Amino acid sequence: MDELLLDHLIMGFLAEDIGPGDITTDAVFGIDQQASAVLQAGEPLVAAGMALAAGRVFRVLNPSIAVEEPMEDGRRAEPGAVMLKLRGPVRDLLRGERVALNLAQRLCGIATLTRKYVDQVAGLNAQITDTRKTTPGLRMLEKYAVRVGGGRNHRFNLADGVLIKDNHIAACGTISAAVGRVRARAPHTVRIEVEAESLAQVRECLDSGVDIIMLDNMSLDEMRRVVKLVGGRARIEASGGITLENVRRVAETGVDMISIGALTHSYKALDISLEMEPVNPKS
Amino acid sequence: MDELLLDHLIMGFLAEDIGPGDITTDAVFGIDQQASAVLQAGEPLVAAGMALAAGRVFRVLNPSIAVEEPMEDGRRAEPGAVMLKLRGPVRDLLRGERVALNLAQRLCGIATLTRKYVDQVAGLNAQITDTRKTTPGLRMLEKYAVRVGGGRNHRFNLADGVLIKDNHIAACGTISAAVGRVRARAPHTVRIEVEAESLAQVRECLDSGVDIIMLDNMSLDEMRRVVKLVGGRARIEASGGITLENVRRVAETGVDMISIGALTHSYKALDISLEMEPVNPKS
Amino acid sequence: MDELLLDHLIMGFLAEDIGPGDITTDAVFGIDQQASAVLQAGEPLVAAGMALAAGRVFRVLNPSIAVEEPMEDGRRAEPGAVMLKLRGPVRDLLRGERVALNLAQRLCGIATLTRKYVDQVAGLNAQITDTRKTTPGLRMLEKYAVRVGGGRNHRFNLADGVLIKDNHIAACGTISAAVGRVRARAPHTVRIEVEAESLAQVRECLDSGVDIIMLDNMSLDEMRRVVKLVGGRARIEASGGITLENVRRVAETGVDMISIGALTHSYKALDISLEMEPVNPKS
Amino acid sequence: MDELLLDHLIMGFLAEDIGPGDITTDAVFGIDQQASAVLQAGEPLVAAGMALAAGRVFRVLNPSIAVEEPMEDGRRAEPGAVMLKLRGPVRDLLRGERVALNLAQRLCGIATLTRKYVDQVAGLNAQITDTRKTTPGLRMLEKYAVRVGGGRNHRFNLADGVLIKDNHIAACGTISAAVGRVRARAPHTVRIEVEAESLAQVRECLDSGVDIIMLDNMSLDEMRRVVKLVGGRARIEASGGITLENVRRVAETGVDMISIGALTHSYKALDISLEMEPVNPKS
Amino acid sequence: MDELLLDHLIMGFLAEDIGPGDITTDAVFGIDQQASAVLQAGEPLVAAGMALAAGRVFRVLNPSIAVEEPMEDGRRAEPGAVMLKLRGPVRDLLRGERVALNLAQRLCGIATLTRKYVDQVAGLNAQITDTRKTTPGLRMLEKYAVRVGGGRNHRFNLADGVLIKDNHIAACGTISAAVGRVRARAPHTVRIEVEAESLAQVRECLDSGVDIIMLDNMSLDEMRRVVKLVGGRARIEASGGITLENVRRVAETGVDMISIGALTHSYKALDISLEMEPVNPKS
Amino acid sequence: MDELLLDHLIMGFLAEDIGPGDITTDAVFGIDQQASAVLQAGEPLVAAGMALAAGRVFRVLNPSIAVEEPMEDGRRAEPGAVMLKLRGPVRDLLRGERVALNLAQRLCGIATLTRKYVDQVAGLNAQITDTRKTTPGLRMLEKYAVRVGGGRNHRFNLADGVLIKDNHIAACGTISAAVGRVRARAPHTVRIEVEAESLAQVRECLDSGVDIIMLDNMSLDEMRRVVKLVGGRARIEASGGITLENVRRVAETGVDMISIGALTHSYKALDISLEMEPVNPKS
Repeated sequence: MDELLLDHLIMGFLAEDIGPGDITTDAVFGIDQQASAVLQAGEPLVAAGMALAAGRVFRVLNPSIAVEEPMEDGRRAEPGAVMLKLRGPVRDLLRGERVALNLAQRLCGIATLTRKYVDQVAGLNAQITDTRKTTPGLRMLEKYAVRVGGGRNHRFNLADGVLIKDNHIAACGTISAAVGRVRARAPHTVRIEVEAESLAQVRECLDSGVDIIMLDNMSLDEMRRVVKLVGGRARIEASGGITLENVRRVAETGVDMISIGALTHSYKALDISLEMEPVNPKS
Repeated sequence: MDELLLDHLIMGFLAEDIGPGDITTDAVFGIDQQASAVLQAGEPLVAAGMALAAGRVFRVLNPSIAVEEPMEDGRRAEPGAVMLKLRGPVRDLLRGERVALNLAQRLCGIATLTRKYVDQVAGLNAQITDTRKTTPGLRMLEKYAVRVGGGRNHRFNLADGVLIKDNHIAACGTISAAVGRVRARAPHTVRIEVEAESLAQVRECLDSGVDIIMLDNMSLDEMRRVVKLVGGRARIEASGGITLENVRRVAETGVDMISIGALTHSYKALDISLEMEPVNPKS
Repeated sequence: MDELLLDHLIMGFLAEDIGPGDITTDAVFGIDQQASAVLQAGEPLVAAGMALAAGRVFRVLNPSIAVEEPMEDGRRAEPGAVMLKLRGPVRDLLRGERVALNLAQRLCGIATLTRKYVDQVAGLNAQITDTRKTTPGLRMLEKYAVRVGGGRNHRFNLADGVLIKDNHIAACGTISAAVGRVRARAPHTVRIEVEAESLAQVRECLDSGVDIIMLDNMSLDEMRRVVKLVGGRARIEASGGITLENVRRVAETGVDMISIGALTHSYKALDISLEMEPVNPKS
Repeated sequence: MDELLLDHLIMGFLAEDIGPGDITTDAVFGIDQQASAVLQAGEPLVAAGMALAAGRVFRVLNPSIAVEEPMEDGRRAEPGAVMLKLRGPVRDLLRGERVALNLAQRLCGIATLTRKYVDQVAGLNAQITDTRKTTPGLRMLEKYAVRVGGGRNHRFNLADGVLIKDNHIAACGTISAAVGRVRARAPHTVRIEVEAESLAQVRECLDSGVDIIMLDNMSLDEMRRVVKLVGGRARIEASGGITLENVRRVAETGVDMISIGALTHSYKALDISLEMEPVNPKS
Repeated sequence: MDELLLDHLIMGFLAEDIGPGDITTDAVFGIDQQASAVLQAGEPLVAAGMALAAGRVFRVLNPSIAVEEPMEDGRRAEPGAVMLKLRGPVRDLLRGERVALNLAQRLCGIATLTRKYVDQVAGLNAQITDTRKTTPGLRMLEKYAVRVGGGRNHRFNLADGVLIKDNHIAACGTISAAVGRVRARAPHTVRIEVEAESLAQVRECLDSGVDIIMLDNMSLDEMRRVVKLVGGRARIEASGGITLENVRRVAETGVDMISIGALTHSYKALDISLEMEPVNPKS
Repeated sequence: MDELLLDHLIMGFLAEDIGPGDITTDAVFGIDQQASAVLQAGEPLVAAGMALAAGRVFRVLNPSIAVEEPMEDGRRAEPGAVMLKLRGPVRDLLRGERVALNLAQRLCGIATLTRKYVDQVAGLNAQITDTRKTTPGLRMLEKYAVRVGGGRNHRFNLADGVLIKDNHIAACGTISAAVGRVRARAPHTVRIEVEAESLAQVRECLDSGVDIIMLDNMSLDEMRRVVKLVGGRARIEASGGITLENVRRVAETGVDMISIGALTHSYKALDISLEMEPVNPKS
């Protein structure tokens, strides 16, 4: 994850939440009052982004804030676990609180959900991957949380991976024509992936030498047949309709990857709170 | 919702998703090929942002795209319902698809969830309101969707509302001291809201003439006693632990507002897809 | 005042003044030459923003510059008084000079003018407030200076306060209809303010339960009658045609607030200069 | 004035004033309601920026707004004169009103003040010029208004003009050394200007072949002697302590330019208002 | 190439060149004077970016400028050939001239140079590709020009392709360890490329199943041996020390790609000029 | 060169090259692994921007990187010479490498080429100057490199210098009319330069009192006659068709300046590489 880009994002998030100033906090606290605080888990979760997201919010706000003992990415936390320690001006701790929590709760939500999917396919070959169904503006952070949860990333944007879909195929007439056009123009550094809806299309993919075949909403039975047909000549990505209930059965068909939009579009923000040590009345 | 700010956000979302260019689509489609497409509901939902968010994505991308018949905000859509019609260069329809869907699915998710809460308290006085627990970068849009769903907005940022919380009170010694400090500095255009954790604190609030009292995680019984004690001298906002199951019982206590973080932090992206009319092979 | 936003503003101001580089100073001084300088008052004034604005300009330009002993906000300075001490690379002191002075002179101008109005109403209930008639791009800083001078802030922007004016009323037919529409949509955290031009309209305001009534260009006599009529049921803001000469008479009518556009649109930049300790010729 | 830069500035000004949205207007007016409005002078003034600043604010906000009959830059307007006509969505007229007025009032203020100085020196050789004592963020617009008022512009920033001041001279030992260093590095396209505090320094300037000599706070008598001494070998700029009362006497000394910080740091925002034609109640 | 990003870049280029305004042109031409102009080739070249770069500069500057008959990308132009026709306000044609030419001359320079390399390897299998040795800020445009010239693009940035170099290998101990680490984390949509300096390393690459092997500065003889050894199991990219003189010999070794930094770091800006039809004196 | 603007540029360059993250390096190196590296010349060159450009890239990326012993601007380096020393996290050294080299190679290329032209005219009066034919986005840096190489800068943008060309003259009818219009509006701080194509036009320039006369593509003989005719009453700038071969002959005609577009549009990126000290395998 690129830190310069991250800081740029965080500045935007802080501007959104703070506006021209915190009129409550600025009235109550002097500019010099210091405090300590911790971020604390309120439910079981997989930690993600305590240093890189939550801690960084406070560092961007005020580099003099001490950000200590961030819980390591990927560690499981139980309710009550301290996930980050902070010390600095009260004003800045309160100004950064909401953005830090809004980020941390979502990233831990994604990592925790991803881990559940990853655990479901334990021992099998298939890898859990995300999609481009991310929250606008948060893709870099959300894909980071997927990695923390043990998942893998699909392409980041339309420029760093090829995915030939039904509309592209229709426009070219055949899969082979579409693959030809793309292969003649796309950087050689990216693989060619094609979405197939039938065994016939899978065969066309193989004939065209595609690198990855995405199976769109196929039945388990169809997937098994595809795996057999492909026989290792391309990677196979299952996609569509995957749930925690059926993911293991999908993995057992032998596909290489299972991409799941829900990792980033239907996670829950988990319970994390900022607890501040009481500040003495200003004398 | 401010359209200039909105367009600025959308440009950022598009940049994130497109990167330096769509290497698949650019290889397949000529710059002049035109197509039509619709956005279609895949499950029952409350429409939100079809014109202002989804449609605007395409207009920002290319002002020549025709964006027609957006489903009206707040209307209930059944599966298969057409929510927006588009016509323009294929390249731009495909480049905008993901961002438009990522936004539309989320905004409809929020409006739909909000509507469920609002329906639960039908006939009662209490209003459903959101919180600052929004997705970083999406607050303006998410709060818009809450309004579409029949909910009300809490403060947008730290500058446009006063909320005196436990840390502020502790720092000042008493609620009355905290209220005094804030009243002496905050713009007279905003109300003074204080978070109270006990009846004793509610009494302090009344003595200090606060405008709104937020009850933090009180029992139904406590809330009823507060409503009686306050007797209309301040507005009462219930907060914490609200679910679709208990929201009506909370409303029945007589509180004026019920604020629910889940509206914006735990909604589901709903199923909406872009269906493009097949494009003929380029001759 | 939000410091992240402030630094962003200052960077823009410096870019405007410096352009691609200071061709005079860069030719004369080596990159390592150090100097000391002070900001000095040239006329009696109320200090505002010496640390937050003037000092910050130099810190943004070069964090290694020592910025010391800023005169406290709100203190009265006599001609010759040292308001800020600086020490660092000559080049940076000269590059920052103009922006720092341009800001300091204006902020002190606002604070000094505000203080005059505030002093005029000493002992009375009325508070002096600003308006949205601020210099484009400087609102946050100008409203800060108003607070330093003892004034209060009206709403910061169109989103953080409700003000129903003649056009809104005309469009809705009656004040009560306008208030109803706004109350049904605006966040509950902001007060409802309505502009009234007659006693009849003041009565309508009271019937509609508005929180604040703005009296637009009323005579002293009308204001007195309004104060009596309202009897504490709403706050009253006098507006229009206020001068240093008549402000006390307006306050004596018993209004709660007096809003004055001149605080931010017709102040004078006061005389403050940067005096640098002579730098020895570079050997 | 560069229009791309101008639009960028205007977007920032609108964002500052509107924030996430106009909660009053959006509640009252439908998105389709249209209205007409005019900008009207409330006192005698010299028009400046009606098309380029005020009108452009509305065009940036919504390109479909009709902006017509802007009063020509430099024309004198009497109270009641219509300076600009607008027609478009009510919402956008109200959202743009404050920024347009805040700009127009200031620019007309500068043009009007500049004109007064220019009129004072009518028939004499001296030209009135501005300085870098402009409002941070508004320099391009303020210097434009100076030109409209008949004044001339001094350098725009530190990169597009050379001005060797006391600190530069002290650091180099002599004026001739300072001029030498600058001449060896600055682009040949800019003139060399030096600030002189005595006749001796003026002589040094002449010996060094400087193009412009700035006289800092000299008496009328000294200025006369300088004019005689220089005898056309360099241009002479008078600076410091210039008022409407003494400007003609300064001009009569024979100096070429008189630079006046007050043009941009101590002007008054003039009375201009937006009058909207009543909008019928929404049926 | 993404047009939103492109327009953003162009705005920055125009701001750099125009600054606060064109003081020569604004003094000479009225805002309404119209003119026609053409961009004309001054030497033989391959056209690139006449519509997307040069034409777009004028459209960004003023959407009312007519931009017609751009020479098609990839066409060879002879001296005197008209490459673009323009018609619009003289001021805007002159303000955009330099940026449009600076871009067009460079993009045509790249396309022309690329075409020379591509022509040298005509009939052979090898493809000419660019590198990340592009001009900071211009990568998207420069890589576009490479494609226009018949070349192919290597990765756009560090996120959309894997290239394991000597430092990565040294840090992991072996190529296989490095590949393993990267394969376990990088998106499955990108190929794995490894830089090899010897046949031993090429063998390690094959054993690790890498997709692309980059040969760094190998002799023709070594390359031939690598091609034989690899036998189609991976793609081979030749790199380092390629010139127009030796590129065909390199291609004849059988490598798949030849990457050439000079395409984007050592091209010449070609001679293109803007010829304006004389504008009549303003009466 | 303004460092704030420079840092802003560098952030954009880094964002372009890094994208959402370096997927190779992040997989291989831990966040804490440190390394040392040097930038090394690969061919004879004149150093430019080692501290201000290359070193600053790393400081912007991570302020904790030690940037030491930058080779002084203008020094001649032989192959193998160490030009900059770096020490810090391996990840950041590798992430910054390409941008730092892309800048350093270009700036040294410009300085080296400029020096060649400057050396050619050694002992003569003429100065070598650049033009506005710079790479879009890099003008500030490229003009800096020209100064490092011993050249002088022409105007930076259209606002900081006057250059009246054929189109301006045609539009005004005569040179004297054009000069008059410009002199009446342009800041007095900039010189008036006019492009002349014949001796007749040179005479007109002299009659109009222009400061600088640019000779466009004149023969050596014509230039000699112009020099004689002008006789010191204006500066003379030769322009067009200058090469390393003919520059001395042009200088010998007695012109004051020789402007050369090739300095910034046809330089070569010189060979500089980053050599990293081997990093031990991560245990």
